[in-house]
Amino acid sequence: MAITNKIENFHMEVNGAFADKAQALTPTLLERTVSPVGTVEITPRGPDYAAAPAERGFDRSLPLGRGGRVCLDFGDHQVGYVSFTLTPVGSPPDAPVFLRLKFGEIPYEIAADLSGYEGEVSRSWIQEELLHIDVVPAVVRLPRRYAFRYLEVTVIDTSPKYKVVLSGVTCTAVTSADRSALTPLKTADPELIQLDRVSLKTMEDCMQTVFEDGPKRDRRLWLGDLRLQAQTNYMTFRNNGLVKRCLYLFAGLTQNEGRVGACLFLEPAPQVDDTALFDYSLFFVSCLHDYYEATGDRETLAELAPTARRQIELALRELDGRGIVADRDTWWCFLDWGDGLNKQAGAQAVLIYALKQAGQLAAWLEDPAWGEQCRGHIDRLTRAAVEHLWDEERGFFVSGAERQVSWASQVWFVLAGVFGRKENVRLLERLMEEDPGVPMVTPYMYHHFIQALMDSGLKERAVEYLKEYWGGMLRDGADTFWELYDPRDRYASPYGSRAVNSFCHAWSSTPAYFIRRYLDS
Amino acid sequence: MAITNKIENFHMEVNGAFADKAQALTPTLLERTVSPVGTVEITPRGPDYAAAPAERGFDRSLPLGRGGRVCLDFGDHQVGYVSFTLTPVGSPPDAPVFLRLKFGEIPYEIAADLSGYEGEVSRSWIQEELLHIDVVPAVVRLPRRYAFRYLEVTVIDTSPKYKVVLSGVTCTAVTSADRSALTPLKTADPELIQLDRVSLKTMEDCMQTVFEDGPKRDRRLWLGDLRLQAQTNYMTFRNNGLVKRCLYLFAGLTQNEGRVGACLFLEPAPQVDDTALFDYSLFFVSCLHDYYEATGDRETLAELAPTARRQIELALRELDGRGIVADRDTWWCFLDWGDGLNKQAGAQAVLIYALKQAGQLAAWLEDPAWGEQCRGHIDRLTRAAVEHLWDEERGFFVSGAERQVSWASQVWFVLAGVFGRKENVRLLERLMEEDPGVPMVTPYMYHHFIQALMDSGLKERAVEYLKEYWGGMLRDGADTFWELYDPRDRYASPYGSRAVNSFCHAWSSTPAYFIRRYLDS
Repeated sequence: MAITNKIENFHMEVNGAFADKAQALTPTLLERTVSPVGTVEITPRGPDYAAAPAERGFDRSLPLGRGGRVCLDFGDHQVGYVSFTLTPVGSPPDAPVFLRLKFGEIPYEIAADLSGYEGEVSRSWIQEELLHIDVVPAVVRLPRRYAFRYLEVTVIDTSPKYKVVLSGVTCTAVTSADRSALTPLKTADPELIQLDRVSLKTMEDCMQTVFEDGPKRDRRLWLGDLRLQAQTNYMTFRNNGLVKRCLYLFAGLTQNEGRVGACLFLEPAPQVDDTALFDYSLFFVSCLHDYYEATGDRETLAELAPTARRQIELALRELDGRGIVADRDTWWCFLDWGDGLNKQAGAQAVLIYALKQAGQLAAWLEDPAWGEQCRGHIDRLTRAAVEHLWDEERGFFVSGAERQVSWASQVWFVLAGVFGRKENVRLLERLMEEDPGVPMVTPYMYHHFIQALMDSGLKERAVEYLKEYWGGMLRDGADTFWELYDPRDRYASPYGSRAVNSFCHAWSSTPAYFIRRYLDS
Repeated sequence: MAITNKIENFHMEVNGAFADKAQALTPTLLERTVSPVGTVEITPRGPDYAAAPAERGFDRSLPLGRGGRVCLDFGDHQVGYVSFTLTPVGSPPDAPVFLRLKFGEIPYEIAADLSGYEGEVSRSWIQEELLHIDVVPAVVRLPRRYAFRYLEVTVIDTSPKYKVVLSGVTCTAVTSADRSALTPLKTADPELIQLDRVSLKTMEDCMQTVFEDGPKRDRRLWLGDLRLQAQTNYMTFRNNGLVKRCLYLFAGLTQNEGRVGACLFLEPAPQVDDTALFDYSLFFVSCLHDYYEATGDRETLAELAPTARRQIELALRELDGRGIVADRDTWWCFLDWGDGLNKQAGAQAVLIYALKQAGQLAAWLEDPAWGEQCRGHIDRLTRAAVEHLWDEERGFFVSGAERQVSWASQVWFVLAGVFGRKENVRLLERLMEEDPGVPMVTPYMYHHFIQALMDSGLKERAVEYLKEYWGGMLRDGADTFWELYDPRDRYASPYGSRAVNSFCHAWSSTPAYFIRRYLDS
């Protein structure tokens, strides 16, 4: 995710003890050396590109001179550090070697002409390097980390007197996910097995020194992504220390007034971003709730509960006189990508959802006063939502002055449990049948839809959507699940070019969570 | 210089003792920190570009975002390592910084569009880097050495949320030339003072761990260049250890049959190139001659004389039955750049010139037998030259089957002393008056012309040409003397683009030699 919504007069508030606790939990990354499995040729396929094994395999002794090129296929998505050896052939090298390296999660990034890229998201995310190597033979160790399956090496020039042989290309892949913690699936359903496998790979590649949103872009800790990663983690890699570290980072480095930021940067030193999102801040409550539920770590619960409570207080400030979250015309709440989605109803639902989890925290902490407060807010907000946001005639929740009907609003009110189970089932069925208004566009929003179906006992429909939506990515060639996938507009990007879309994205890795939590018994 | 002429079945013959001696003489480079003196704007001027101080000086606190650019002027030519600081301004940096750096010895390299460069010389010599900096603030230390006066920094992208301030840009300039060894000039002639100053700067920037031909390109030790650098060095920086090191490198690392190569590479390990040039191999004799004359280092003379003698033996093999060096249709002898120059006559003259220096070596070594041999060859080759290459009717030496008349042939026969002084004076005057046939194109060839004038006592004409030719470079904006300068075709390049011409080139640094040897008394 990347967009701007800077809070006013931003400053960072530091809780040194929390920040130190987070730093002490920094994991040692596991390393694995991966070599390419072969070479590919990338050719246009419709409006996209496809990779196919090269007719002749890569002859490793083939010297490359001016314009020489090879596209290596590492067989699967990788996150790590690449090194290779260049050996000169011919006369003694009388000029530097000049190389272009292109790293692609998908073939499009290798083949597309990106010279005209002018999207809003920084061009600096395009994984392309131009490199001069003054002295060969050389072992070249690239200092940057890349996320990729394909690596195209083009020798822009050597000299007329010599060429170079490329050998020993390897990627030292890194992760903080330990596969030995996984339990085998019981299901024999090949589609579920495949969805689980790709989910795990997506999770693994996003698990670094924090839960990154995407290892190509933005490579950082977003709270909305963390919530889904943590949920999946409890069912898979069980690296609970990493979740704890992330919680302490968010609690230790807050924005003005103790507001938990939407995301954090780790380098050069941990730093909260100046972006605030209404729903993301509240998800600190959810993350803490889920963490305690999964771990029973009472010390952390007690230490971080005040931070959770603070997020509720800050959110309640945004209510209007009716008890409805005031709408805003900025990018103030996430919910989903997609043009024109009004966030008011979803924000109201998220607040109710978080209040219920806060009430649970209060119960665990044996803090009846706080519990009572939460219940009061829940009642008031629920009544207000039904009174002002529920359109009885249309049978849907509406959002904003234009009374917009969207999938996001319905899904979040189901998750918030504003209605009982039966009404929720009817609402979801009506939603699927009528497909009214603003659709879902990200796997992140689809996740919440699947969760709403599961919560409402509509397991079969949930599986159907899982297989259709995430399965669609697999059928479209995904090695890891993508940040963005709109079956109606497969080549969409909110960023100006698909090349800067993330094709290994944490918030899309939740099929493993659904399968292992609900479907694998 | 860069072109290909690979000898057959090339292998390197190593004299370990000589190579070790050379390595032990590796100088420690002197370092000096240089900061930019200001910023410039580079604009088209005719077919070239010119740099003028920017209307507003570079505001060092001015943040640069997407497309932001500044061109720094370091005030003079520099050879060294650049570092700078990038400090973000705005929100916490949420994407890497993506920079383009262009280094230029002249404004053309900054401003010209070189994307279509397809010259024979490697494109890898173009001093342009594309750089991703993942984390800012950062002190960026570029690992490569550059030769430049101008440095253009373009921020291709940061992100919409932040910009960067560029500060602390410095160049750690390196050289093995020590200015404290210089003696002040006596002359008050402002043109000579200026020519001397720029010569010294050119020398200084080419004096690294060896005498490089050009610090931008080829950055290596060419024997033809070494000869002129050493001659200038004896009159200026007096780093005689560096000359000795280069002599031992050439003698320690020879081609097949003990042939001294045209050039040497230093990295990854010292290595003679596979290029052989008839004149360059013979210049080993000249370099040893000049070195002993300057230093009286008898041990080196005795140790390296066999290598010198071997070059004479190998050259004599190339004589035809008449005692004339056989012509070849390859790039076998250098003399000068320029299309169509026939090398036969020049090669004959160079051999006579080298034989006379070999005779001097024999005398110093008190080796009358070798001296006698040399005199025999000199007589035979001189007679053959006059009989077969001197065209009495035209009054010029001719070369090759086409009996080509060139400046190079005449100049070299004057230097070889085939005629007496009076005839040489007449030959040179006729040459200057009639300007017959193939002209000179490089400062390297102009050097030999000036030397021929000096040897013949035509000092005034020598000064005239010095001021006209090297002074022309100064009037055209040279900070250091150029590899190539043809007043009739100022924008020429034998390489496909001026951008890969060397604008600080050792073989052009000899005005200081002429001034200090002949004109400063």
